[in-house]
Amino acid sequence: MKRKIYSLWLCLNMAAAAVAQTDAALLQQLSDEIMLRSTAYENLRYLCKRVGPRLSGSPQAQKAVEATARMLKEAGADTVYLQPCMVPHWERGAKEQGIVTYAGKQKALNVCALGMSIGTPTAGIKAGVIEVRNFEELEKLPDATVKGKIVFFNYAMRPELIQGGYGDAVRYRSNGPVAAAKKGAVAVMIRSVTHSLDNYPHTGTTRYDSGVTKIPAFACSTMDAEWLSKQLKLRMPVQLFLKSSCKQGPDVLSYNVIGEIRGSEKPEEIITAGGHLDSWDLAEGAHDDGSGCVQSIEVIRAIKALGWKPKRTIRAVMFMNEENGLRGGTAYAAFAKQLNEQHIFAVESDAGGFGVETLGVSGKPNQFAQIKSWESLLRPYGIYEISNGGGGADIGPLKPLGTVMCGVNPNSQRYFDHHHAANDVFEAVNKRELELGAFSMAAICWLVSQYGL
Amino acid sequence: MKRKIYSLWLCLNMAAAAVAQTDAALLQQLSDEIMLRSTAYENLRYLCKRVGPRLSGSPQAQKAVEATARMLKEAGADTVYLQPCMVPHWERGAKEQGIVTYAGKQKALNVCALGMSIGTPTAGIKAGVIEVRNFEELEKLPDATVKGKIVFFNYAMRPELIQGGYGDAVRYRSNGPVAAAKKGAVAVMIRSVTHSLDNYPHTGTTRYDSGVTKIPAFACSTMDAEWLSKQLKLRMPVQLFLKSSCKQGPDVLSYNVIGEIRGSEKPEEIITAGGHLDSWDLAEGAHDDGSGCVQSIEVIRAIKALGWKPKRTIRAVMFMNEENGLRGGTAYAAFAKQLNEQHIFAVESDAGGFGVETLGVSGKPNQFAQIKSWESLLRPYGIYEISNGGGGADIGPLKPLGTVMCGVNPNSQRYFDHHHAANDVFEAVNKRELELGAFSMAAICWLVSQYGL
Repeated sequence: MKRKIYSLWLCLNMAAAAVAQTDAALLQQLSDEIMLRSTAYENLRYLCKRVGPRLSGSPQAQKAVEATARMLKEAGADTVYLQPCMVPHWERGAKEQGIVTYAGKQKALNVCALGMSIGTPTAGIKAGVIEVRNFEELEKLPDATVKGKIVFFNYAMRPELIQGGYGDAVRYRSNGPVAAAKKGAVAVMIRSVTHSLDNYPHTGTTRYDSGVTKIPAFACSTMDAEWLSKQLKLRMPVQLFLKSSCKQGPDVLSYNVIGEIRGSEKPEEIITAGGHLDSWDLAEGAHDDGSGCVQSIEVIRAIKALGWKPKRTIRAVMFMNEENGLRGGTAYAAFAKQLNEQHIFAVESDAGGFGVETLGVSGKPNQFAQIKSWESLLRPYGIYEISNGGGGADIGPLKPLGTVMCGVNPNSQRYFDHHHAANDVFEAVNKRELELGAFSMAAICWLVSQYGL
Repeated sequence: MKRKIYSLWLCLNMAAAAVAQTDAALLQQLSDEIMLRSTAYENLRYLCKRVGPRLSGSPQAQKAVEATARMLKEAGADTVYLQPCMVPHWERGAKEQGIVTYAGKQKALNVCALGMSIGTPTAGIKAGVIEVRNFEELEKLPDATVKGKIVFFNYAMRPELIQGGYGDAVRYRSNGPVAAAKKGAVAVMIRSVTHSLDNYPHTGTTRYDSGVTKIPAFACSTMDAEWLSKQLKLRMPVQLFLKSSCKQGPDVLSYNVIGEIRGSEKPEEIITAGGHLDSWDLAEGAHDDGSGCVQSIEVIRAIKALGWKPKRTIRAVMFMNEENGLRGGTAYAAFAKQLNEQHIFAVESDAGGFGVETLGVSGKPNQFAQIKSWESLLRPYGIYEISNGGGGADIGPLKPLGTVMCGVNPNSQRYFDHHHAANDVFEAVNKRELELGAFSMAAICWLVSQYGL
């Protein structure tokens, strides 16, 4: 009996080893296909250089919808379709002005309006500047000191945080306008959320609270933040002139772009690989998030090019409106719920097209353990870990449906140098790093498609 | 008795846990010190922008010796000294020319001489071109076909090799001249060893065999390699004019630059952290290997700034002449042997100042296991693995002395875009990635200094 059990055990182990070997060989083919024949880099070039900045509701966003639908068809998707969603339509208007008057001189700052900010009056706003390092400093100031002034949040992204510096600093971009308005400020300017000392202002969404006066919100470059802080320390009178002409129009119709390979055995089980198609209007949106889009398209292209037939359905989704509304992601989950679709797994790439280091996975313990067991299969391609916890903004709304969430985690140290700024351009993306990210998505989607969860 | 053993076991475990906690807290301090106050980035700026290219034997190499000796003093090293070594003195001479005559037209190629190449005759060399993809293709050609021609090795770095593409392709740079000369060629030109399609020629050392005619050796940019290959396929007569004026002078005196913190308990046990100070003459040598130098200096600075007293001696070493002779590394090991020094550990950073992913370690199984046990201490700083096998060219000569070898392994996908070319500049290095690399070296040196091996 013992011998029989041992034989059975041996058989099972040999079978498992054979499966692993087959998977390893298949992933090698997948990697070769992507590293040798990927169209991701040229698709990214098109999105960045031919379409360009593509804020939700803009003509370029519509152009991006059409371009990626074409790319998905060229990639060989069985079906390509547009999924409608209404999106906010915020417009920056004319290039903003930020001019400091000090000691009888003037200096123009590199400023931009924060996304979703209201504009200034047509004549602009001119006022004294109150610099604070953080919310606590602002709180301590008497209201009378702040009233009628421009609050300048000079909070530097903390260099000693190896990860998490963005989440820590972005509070000033999100909540600065409300905090400043509560104290009577007439406008707010934040130091750009980046580690880099340079001349680019970085935009990004801000927010208002109902019941609190909306005031215009700006970011200045980190170099200008340093300069202005020095001027203010000299205690000479400093006046700041700010002008913007942002407008919020009515919502407009836009789309998620979807391409899929129908599963051969369990087509009802759906796997989503996505990135977001919209970008800020100041940037080509190469890292944020053209990369995630073209990587998702590459998942489809590579699998079709190899002639593989996934057992479960694999979808590439270009989500619209991650930056200032998340309407695309919300609509995608709403459709899924309405159509009673079975979304077993979703992976998003929205942390830049840099070299992938880990895949973060959120699911039930047994689901995580199953995916974790594939770790060694991914190791030869520079993916060091399947780590616990992960997802993405656009796929987030699927979570309540029980979908296992996965986030592609590249080395992020350079990311915020480019984030939401004019230097987020095609040239900042390395072809091989982009392709290895596409491989990581294709590999995990393929494994889930074959084994289920 | 059982109870006593259990108590003892518990005590030991608690002690081990306490040690680990202390180490974790210390590494956090070390990381903070480096991320907040590192001088590595500014030192790199100086090496790149104020010293510039610093090929062995050049006045700039001497300037680099003086500059890094100063930096080590400023970093607070207990002792700073120069270790003499004789180095080759190869000079490129005037900017090379590569001009293709085809169909009655002329086109200038982006070419450079390979390092250590002989120059052409003063009038240059003009000859027909034989393109081969690899050594096998060359071997199959009749000698008469090759005789009097310029052999063009158009071997592209293989994109499907995730790692190892360089080692595979660099054979043509190293061995191309000998292989071509054996067939009677008058000169050789290789496709630059890089994945990137651009206009930079990449240099690097080539070699000759005694008994085989020395012929001048060049590299052309990958874009020009593609263009020339297309021309040759049209089967129109193509002539290539190549001119260089490289010279090999007599060896000259140069130095390794050494700064050390003397160990407080076992000063005779030496830990080396190094990079190489020389660079190719075409590049600022930011990634190769200014980064490794300033990271090694940062090891000293951070430990001194924290007021820590390592039990064992820690040395930062700027090795001279890695690129075309390895005389510095050889001299360092020879001095070590002569002085009967006890070198327990050496770590080198010479794979670019990019985000570190692993530390590779070569030592006896118990030594590897000990270092491997520190893996979780390094994980919060983005170092995913202590992997088996590692070292560096300059520390290599220490290996026969029983020194444990360690190599800093960053994500290397972008490295060869810049390698030995004019775009290996300061701007290509990210401050945080550079600093995290310095941290990885400082952390491993600190742990070895406290626990020994």
